[in-house]
Amino acid sequence: MFMSIYWSEKARLLQPYTPGEQPKFTNLVKLNTNENPFEPSPRVMEAMHDAIDGDLRLYPDPEANRLKQTIADYYHLSSSQVFVGNGSDEVLAMAFATFFQGKNNLLLPEISYSFYPVYCQLYDVQAQLIPLDNDLAINPEDYQHAQGGVVIANPNAPTGRLLSLEQIEQIVLANLEGVVLVDEAYIDFGGQSAVKLIARYPNLLIIQTLSKSRSLAGLRVGLALGQSELIAGMEKVKNSFNSYPLDRVAQAGAIAAFNDEAYFRQTCKQVVENRQWLAEQLEALDFNVLPSAANFVFASHARYAAELIYQRLHQLGIIVRHFKQLRINNYLRISVGTMKQQQQLIAALKTILI
Amino acid sequence: MFMSIYWSEKARLLQPYTPGEQPKFTNLVKLNTNENPFEPSPRVMEAMHDAIDGDLRLYPDPEANRLKQTIADYYHLSSSQVFVGNGSDEVLAMAFATFFQGKNNLLLPEISYSFYPVYCQLYDVQAQLIPLDNDLAINPEDYQHAQGGVVIANPNAPTGRLLSLEQIEQIVLANLEGVVLVDEAYIDFGGQSAVKLIARYPNLLIIQTLSKSRSLAGLRVGLALGQSELIAGMEKVKNSFNSYPLDRVAQAGAIAAFNDEAYFRQTCKQVVENRQWLAEQLEALDFNVLPSAANFVFASHARYAAELIYQRLHQLGIIVRHFKQLRINNYLRISVGTMKQQQQLIAALKTILI
Repeated sequence: MFMSIYWSEKARLLQPYTPGEQPKFTNLVKLNTNENPFEPSPRVMEAMHDAIDGDLRLYPDPEANRLKQTIADYYHLSSSQVFVGNGSDEVLAMAFATFFQGKNNLLLPEISYSFYPVYCQLYDVQAQLIPLDNDLAINPEDYQHAQGGVVIANPNAPTGRLLSLEQIEQIVLANLEGVVLVDEAYIDFGGQSAVKLIARYPNLLIIQTLSKSRSLAGLRVGLALGQSELIAGMEKVKNSFNSYPLDRVAQAGAIAAFNDEAYFRQTCKQVVENRQWLAEQLEALDFNVLPSAANFVFASHARYAAELIYQRLHQLGIIVRHFKQLRINNYLRISVGTMKQQQQLIAALKTILI
Repeated sequence: MFMSIYWSEKARLLQPYTPGEQPKFTNLVKLNTNENPFEPSPRVMEAMHDAIDGDLRLYPDPEANRLKQTIADYYHLSSSQVFVGNGSDEVLAMAFATFFQGKNNLLLPEISYSFYPVYCQLYDVQAQLIPLDNDLAINPEDYQHAQGGVVIANPNAPTGRLLSLEQIEQIVLANLEGVVLVDEAYIDFGGQSAVKLIARYPNLLIIQTLSKSRSLAGLRVGLALGQSELIAGMEKVKNSFNSYPLDRVAQAGAIAAFNDEAYFRQTCKQVVENRQWLAEQLEALDFNVLPSAANFVFASHARYAAELIYQRLHQLGIIVRHFKQLRINNYLRISVGTMKQQQQLIAALKTILI
């Protein structure tokens, strides 16, 4: 890649994140970026239509107070314990800037969301990468007395493996001198949120997204939950960067998403059922499937190389995710889809794994 | 404000930007944050309704390629010369990070958009603040050989005063060793964009917003235009921060906004006419009104203190902007409104200035 004399030293050194492929063609079976197979709630769409016919010429509430209050009520918190941003990627960036910037010894699992090391570069954080254990699980014992804080995705990505609430508490308690950031992007598909620990731990920050369990990847809303002291710091950084991160339509849609609990529970339950079916079918085809609490499975085949399967599926118009990273380069991450998509996947695999 | 042991050194030191008041009550005459008095184009709203009924469960195009191509076509550029972000505040932040971060001697007008010094703190930029001349105008002669680059708003805020295209070119040419960022938030209300200079100058970066002349403050879309080498640097920084800054609805609305030229021209023309009427009425009430090329006027009264007028108007439900900054603390910045709003303002002023 070329450089320019006009770029700052920092801009020259950055190695940006590469998001999963967003194919331009339709008719593909897209199981590569963990989107929800179901549409957002009809009440969400209705609220967004109303917002468009409202006052789009006027700035949105820069504090998104109605949305924060809605989320606070949902989780039995106060609105000063809620931060919202333009997708959880932005919220994560704000959290890294607020709590980890310039620090040494941030503990990160060696295999996790690959954006974390990119934020470390951006905010001059020295991370220590902790290997997963033999089963590709996070061992809570490995995360103790981190001077610079801890970042854990729970369930972890791309493995899908879950830590229990007790294990999360063990990590939080062992690191009271730094912030423990728990990225709960996938928590609603089978895990137990650590939200109820917030009252007890001043160092716990939880990040969630509306892109997965709320079916709103196209809208860009993420949030952070923690004690007011942590949230106030993030607000300060946000207000030095972008005053109005959430537009009127996004605020309206996000509020409605938290107000339709029945739809949320029903679609999450359906995702869990589809995941169960998918895992069983893959196992029947000689895949080793890690236990998943997310809306994807992480699977390795007994005989065929993951990269080969990935390429063959791609030729058949079915897109899954393959990472070239050491230790996981023989796995495929497959998003839970509709039953129809999953049947197409299994049928295609049967033609490949002969 | 309280501090926390968990905040990074950087987060502790920041002094965030304070946006203009966003009152919670309706029925106010809101002339304080330079929103467009007219609704967005009906075609924009239609495109956004369609986007909601599309694939909101799926991530948006992270590169916003259709939007970039639309803007490129509009300005006769290539799409690699276009950057888009979540409001021009975010685009400005990315530009400061990419071009000015860690540098000394960035030249800024002492009186301009008050977010610029906040970005300087955030990205460790040493700014040199250049006074405006006696007429509160920018003197291009003052902006030469800046090692760290130059930032100019044209028209300037909150004065509304315009530099000619020749004056902008003079500044760009005198600073080939650094980036000259021209913030054209208000350019469509009477100025001439510097876009046509891009082909000739590798150091020119232009930033625009859809919040003002396109009536979409509620949507959050901003853009940067410059040679590909500059834009590539901003993409690198963006992809280390937030992969998907523009949601599906915003991308659809922004594309439609650039495709409805007739509506755009008609509403801009109406704003200019309303501004003319407003300035004349204010002058008849003994205000000194600076020549404005923006959708606001900057005015000082011959006898009454600006802060007093501001407070009296506020009591009457009419909100304008008053800055406590030295040299401009006897001015009011008044957004151009609908004729009805402006008549209410003038009627109220007649009761105050007795």
